[in-house]
Amino acid sequence: MAAAGRRPGRHDTRADIVAAARAEFAASGYDQSSLRAIARRAGVDPALVHHYFTSKAELFVEALFMRTDPRAIAEEIHAGRDAAGIGGDLVRAFLGLWDDPVAETTEPFVSVVQAVSASPQAADGLREFLTDRIWSHVGRGQDPELAAMRHSLIASQLFGLGWTRYILRLEPFASASVDQLAAWIGPTLDVYLHGALPDPKIRGPKVKRTRR
Amino acid sequence: MAAAGRRPGRHDTRADIVAAARAEFAASGYDQSSLRAIARRAGVDPALVHHYFTSKAELFVEALFMRTDPRAIAEEIHAGRDAAGIGGDLVRAFLGLWDDPVAETTEPFVSVVQAVSASPQAADGLREFLTDRIWSHVGRGQDPELAAMRHSLIASQLFGLGWTRYILRLEPFASASVDQLAAWIGPTLDVYLHGALPDPKIRGPKVKRTRR
Repeated sequence: MAAAGRRPGRHDTRADIVAAARAEFAASGYDQSSLRAIARRAGVDPALVHHYFTSKAELFVEALFMRTDPRAIAEEIHAGRDAAGIGGDLVRAFLGLWDDPVAETTEPFVSVVQAVSASPQAADGLREFLTDRIWSHVGRGQDPELAAMRHSLIASQLFGLGWTRYILRLEPFASASVDQLAAWIGPTLDVYLHGALPDPKIRGPKVKRTRR
Repeated sequence: MAAAGRRPGRHDTRADIVAAARAEFAASGYDQSSLRAIARRAGVDPALVHHYFTSKAELFVEALFMRTDPRAIAEEIHAGRDAAGIGGDLVRAFLGLWDDPVAETTEPFVSVVQAVSASPQAADGLREFLTDRIWSHVGRGQDPELAAMRHSLIASQLFGLGWTRYILRLEPFASASVDQLAAWIGPTLDVYLHGALPDPKIRGPKVKRTRR
């Protein structure tokens, strides 16, 4: 699902900077990493980092999804909208970002949670990446309100999976294989992607308790 | 759903220490809070804090769920196992911990995520609270493997909801009312609580793609 490599039409320098940023964030943490240190690691002038990236948060999100082609993910979700099983693929792609054996740090999800919970700018960067680079391609043609709800639901279940597996370390999620998690979580994501959902316009307490 | 107040049979000093811890964590953050500072805030000897609590992590989790009666939550989940709508109640109870207008900090969920992602001990404390104080009462009588899977699924969807609403601030979750979120997320939790689930013993890739 995730496509490796550099996108055509972009200079190698940009990819070098992203790789250096990934190494620097892994080594020093988000807060302690400076654009200057990243430039030094990449062997380029700091001005060149600013040429390609407007902020550390943007670079952080770019480094995070370095081996991911957001357009390919979006197209796969879009193509499979009516196909059962795409939810399991999404789980595999998501876990592939963190279970990755070649990651520079052993706890990449923990680093991301620390960065995003400490920095509203990093949170903004991650939200914009998900919304503009992935979801804008998936949601096209759908009712915007329903599409946004599907997006929130999917993000909540996937990040909650990461939280439970890597941070809370709750069993069986902590030790389960990627295939098991795809089988357990996939059906929920299938519903969130293309199943029947409650009305996004619900305003009041429409769900009543049946007994106490 | 959440019961307020002190439990009978416990000395007020313990409750005073928990309240002081809650204020100290909110003011200084988990990392910067010491048991000594908490004792000072509570007006007690530090030895007394150690008498009631074995670690800062235990006190952290206790402070987090101060206004929550875990037994009442467990009994409610247990009683409503076959009732539709209990999932929505769980969403309300969960959001009540963080949307609480009398909370000493405006971003209690963010503080918790920072503490738990920075400290494996705090993560252990939170996991043990969920497992021993809530889930052990809910899961009784069920197949243990299935019960643990339900627990992981519920934890993942609830914490993911918090993540998406309070940290990622993705719309519509960020601005939705508690009732809306109960209506949107509740049906998923109803499935996780008492619905049909994939086999917890699945080992291989049982979910096959139908097309690519």
